[in-house]
Amino acid sequence: MQIAILTFDGFNELDSFIASGILNRMRPKGWKAFITSPSESVTSMNGVTVQAERPLEFASRADAVLIGSGMKTREIVQNRDLLGRIRLDPESQIIGAQCSGTLILSKLGLVDDLPVCTDLTTKPWVVEAGVRVLDQPFYANGNIGTAGGCLASQYLAAWVIMHGGSREDARAALHYVAPVGQKDEYVTRAIETVSSFLPK
Amino acid sequence: MQIAILTFDGFNELDSFIASGILNRMRPKGWKAFITSPSESVTSMNGVTVQAERPLEFASRADAVLIGSGMKTREIVQNRDLLGRIRLDPESQIIGAQCSGTLILSKLGLVDDLPVCTDLTTKPWVVEAGVRVLDQPFYANGNIGTAGGCLASQYLAAWVIMHGGSREDARAALHYVAPVGQKDEYVTRAIETVSSFLPK
Repeated sequence: MQIAILTFDGFNELDSFIASGILNRMRPKGWKAFITSPSESVTSMNGVTVQAERPLEFASRADAVLIGSGMKTREIVQNRDLLGRIRLDPESQIIGAQCSGTLILSKLGLVDDLPVCTDLTTKPWVVEAGVRVLDQPFYANGNIGTAGGCLASQYLAAWVIMHGGSREDARAALHYVAPVGQKDEYVTRAIETVSSFLPK
Repeated sequence: MQIAILTFDGFNELDSFIASGILNRMRPKGWKAFITSPSESVTSMNGVTVQAERPLEFASRADAVLIGSGMKTREIVQNRDLLGRIRLDPESQIIGAQCSGTLILSKLGLVDDLPVCTDLTTKPWVVEAGVRVLDQPFYANGNIGTAGGCLASQYLAAWVIMHGGSREDARAALHYVAPVGQKDEYVTRAIETVSSFLPK
């Protein structure tokens, strides 16, 4: 599994790096998550500059795509050139969006009449776009999943691993990142949060 | 509060960015966390290259210092030149270490006979250094705190905010990053995990 973590200028560090860090626990099984950006480098909402590992066009070739969140999402969804570079196929790709990434997902026409998750700041804009927002950390239908709240990115990553790998893979990745002394609690909650949203 | 997030080559993205992201929620109150590194850029354990915001020497001037974790910590603690550039004062600075960062903290002579937290991989090396490792996500005594397990970096950040700010500040920062629909659960657990370790 090759995974694109879409990361734009103004990005939220937690949203891109929690998901990519957990997904990269699967590297021994040939998976790799890449910071995927519209320019050679991007600068986070707090001023941290990161080199892109893949250009935006990589998203169309990836097996899974997670759309990260940030401070400039409302500008991004107005930028037709930039949006035009993101070509996704929900039939063949696992696609997720984190917090304000849900707004991009919606603008790409991938939400249809599904309900979604997003963060509390983005919620009014997603509602304005005519989409129903759920008061829960994660929701998915088929190959499209959304998460709300930075730390819910662990659920988005767990869902991708369970979807493209196995429940045991997800348990192992979550166990590694969970706090010492609270690992069972974290793993169980994450698996419970996402497992009802996997294809039967 | 100016905060140095010590970030070395081979760093674990979750450990540096969860802490810095949560601490930077305090920017409206004049706080700022900086990725602080021994070279102009550092590359993570998964290949992501990040520009340092501050040089390693900034740590001695910061109000708080969090030592991040990574794949190369055992090499770092053998590098006297590099360790010599890190000058910390536990009397005047709040000092925390995350996962394998605890090994650096110990090598800097800042652990004394305190017990510590670290991740399960680093644990044998810390034990070998003669330090008692606790089976819990967070522990602090005075100005020195340690956390184990990547996602426990939220506790390290919460402790710094409660230590240098207030409980309400910590609640607000944690509430923002917590998953939607689970915010009270996350905030309560984090506050409970760290509050008994604050100076009376």
